Amino acid sequence: MRTMKGFKALMPVSDALSLVLSRFGEWTPGSEEVLIASSCGRVSDERVVSSVDIPPFDRSAVDGYAVRSEDTYSSSNNNPAELALRGTAEAGGATLAGPVLGGNCVEIYTGAKLPEGADSVVMAEDCERLGGRVLVSKPVPRGANVSIKGEDIRMGDVVLCDHRVIRPWHIGVLASIGRPIIAVRRRPVIAIFSTGNELVDIGGTAGKGAQSIVDSTRPMIASMASAAGCAVNDGGIVSDDLDSISRKMLMLARTSDAVLSIGGTSVGGKDMVPEAAKSISSEGVIFHGVAIKPGKPFGFGVVGGKPLFMLPGYPVSAMVGLEAIVLPLLSLWSGACPAKRQVVKARLARRVPTTPGIRHYLRVHLEETDGGLIASPIAITGSGLLSSITRADGIVVIGEDYEGVEEGSEVSVELLED
Amino acid sequence: MRTMKGFKALMPVSDALSLVLSRFGEWTPGSEEVLIASSCGRVSDERVVSSVDIPPFDRSAVDGYAVRSEDTYSSSNNNPAELALRGTAEAGGATLAGPVLGGNCVEIYTGAKLPEGADSVVMAEDCERLGGRVLVSKPVPRGANVSIKGEDIRMGDVVLCDHRVIRPWHIGVLASIGRPIIAVRRRPVIAIFSTGNELVDIGGTAGKGAQSIVDSTRPMIASMASAAGCAVNDGGIVSDDLDSISRKMLMLARTSDAVLSIGGTSVGGKDMVPEAAKSISSEGVIFHGVAIKPGKPFGFGVVGGKPLFMLPGYPVSAMVGLEAIVLPLLSLWSGACPAKRQVVKARLARRVPTTPGIRHYLRVHLEETDGGLIASPIAITGSGLLSSITRADGIVVIGEDYEGVEEGSEVSVELLED
Repeated sequence: MRTMKGFKALMPVSDALSLVLSRFGEWTPGSEEVLIASSCGRVSDERVVSSVDIPPFDRSAVDGYAVRSEDTYSSSNNNPAELALRGTAEAGGATLAGPVLGGNCVEIYTGAKLPEGADSVVMAEDCERLGGRVLVSKPVPRGANVSIKGEDIRMGDVVLCDHRVIRPWHIGVLASIGRPIIAVRRRPVIAIFSTGNELVDIGGTAGKGAQSIVDSTRPMIASMASAAGCAVNDGGIVSDDLDSISRKMLMLARTSDAVLSIGGTSVGGKDMVPEAAKSISSEGVIFHGVAIKPGKPFGFGVVGGKPLFMLPGYPVSAMVGLEAIVLPLLSLWSGACPAKRQVVKARLARRVPTTPGIRHYLRVHLEETDGGLIASPIAITGSGLLSSITRADGIVVIGEDYEGVEEGSEVSVELLED
Repeated sequence: MRTMKGFKALMPVSDALSLVLSRFGEWTPGSEEVLIASSCGRVSDERVVSSVDIPPFDRSAVDGYAVRSEDTYSSSNNNPAELALRGTAEAGGATLAGPVLGGNCVEIYTGAKLPEGADSVVMAEDCERLGGRVLVSKPVPRGANVSIKGEDIRMGDVVLCDHRVIRPWHIGVLASIGRPIIAVRRRPVIAIFSTGNELVDIGGTAGKGAQSIVDSTRPMIASMASAAGCAVNDGGIVSDDLDSISRKMLMLARTSDAVLSIGGTSVGGKDMVPEAAKSISSEGVIFHGVAIKPGKPFGFGVVGGKPLFMLPGYPVSAMVGLEAIVLPLLSLWSGACPAKRQVVKARLARRVPTTPGIRHYLRVHLEETDGGLIASPIAITGSGLLSSITRADGIVVIGEDYEGVEEGSEVSVELLED
């Protein structure tokens, strides 16, 4: 016997989020080791301390001549110091030179180890080569043009902190200290499945009735989860059947860190997902119905020890629920800050009625005017309309305390394009 | 016979960039087709027009009862309209109901096709079911709770423009109109190789001399190129040998869209890369030496018809040259806007001397004070120091027109973390 009724009570978004985080926010997916070349954008799961000095020896920072600085002190263009050339020092090569004694110098290339006895390098531009002699026309202070051992990184320096997003220059530092491998947070594995007899996969319409609908929410939610640093376990489409849904949930919970269902969460007769979750576990539905628009029929429970997020089937509703309640958990898990949208200020083009106690996500067009940016809410009849997002320039979140926002009010607009 | 001398003339960054873009900015890597599920973050290379209406038919946006609106006009809580229930319409299922005539209604679920004769849906919350009759306690206007055919997307609508970064909601739209495949810009293939007898690959130090240095610049530049949407062709390390370098360049030019060399570009005796490029082609070196600090020994030429960017070997110098001159070209090629760093305003903690005519990239620490953000330049003795980046909070670019910037001046800081 089916019953049709509305949600008895809607949970405020902040309460829903707190419940989810208090239950699963402490858990982490653990770490895995990757080659540093594959680590860009991942989150470090160790603190890396250098066991070496970089540079590993005093080396020349330029091409020129390694000298004892005191030999150059009185040199000038008119009165160059004349030094005897005693060999060549090349980066990575043997130093074909003895120690630099008074009155001597050694030709040296960038990166080469400073020969014993030398304390500085005169740049090639400031010298003239005359056979076996070098005329130095400019004095250099002690240490000039030399990168001293450990100047860049000292043994014992922390070169990468724990829980940092790894950037290209961190990869450079890890390479330079000889670390080929780095421990990073494992990507959380998120299983996603859709329910609905009317649904078919893209390209899979053959043989289905004229009323079949391509499942557009699942690929969209999957790409949002990937963009948030998760690995996606695609659970496909399940028909509106209590047993099929239960079995799918259990299978996905065993093989994933969290399960997202899409569809079948409204409080109608065919809304089997919460029922299936309840049939599996006493905690299958911890809450169902959130004070958010669109996205109200959002549910949360625990199945097989894993969080189960029951997203509404309409794409924009699912997206709003994902952003408001699921992504904050996933970013705690992955250790990465959630990607923040750029925010601009704009004035509302018209009054927007909202219901107190409900958080509203408006999709708006932006228009540049002499008086600044104007945000026009996109007229919609249903939360299912994907075009309300694809045609929008941004999103305005209107909090629970408002009973509508007046025309001309200043609002913050999160930009959808960056 | 080696000669050591400085650069004769340094080319301003803007001129260097103009030369590169005028030569290769019009070229594009062409397009490739990908499954829409793999298209997130790629750049569209076609304009997609819908050949269908979405929804494909008038459908219910809620769970409730499909009615003729005129039958509900006089209804109220005290005086509900009484309608005869004539069947059920389910999403994706057969509509087990005849047309809705006067005084009749059909139970309908979200997403189900509106039965013939009905023009609106009363929400389940506003109805009471009594056996074969339904009491409607609220009037609905014509069209209420119905998503009409084409309301979201109309046949002929442009659902995705050319040259747009594909977002999750675009994937949703493409799925909903039944497009499994999308043409996107092919990723430019960038070959990267390092030169230097002193260099070894990470983990490859065994059997090398004590003066060997791990190549840290190449993995860093490779990850920056990947992050900019390129495919990387790793050309490894080449010894400082004219013939080896020439052969490597030609091989990589044949198999890639652009070649980046790292190292061997300073004007010393061991700087074989420009010489190798010249030995291959009269256009092997179009310019060499750019008015940028760090990064001065930057060169550009054409080898095998492909652009050759000769980056300096020191990591930060290479990074600055890449960002200033190479990435703008690569983003034209890939069609994506270059990722912009967040910019904050700060005051300089101390005077910074700069050379007029040279663009300087300062690495700075930021400190929050009562008087706002303070930017302290990181003291460095050489552009090679990776730690000047890993310890920095941001980068301040000081233009060619300055002859130093005074303590307390306001500067724009590009943040390295986001």
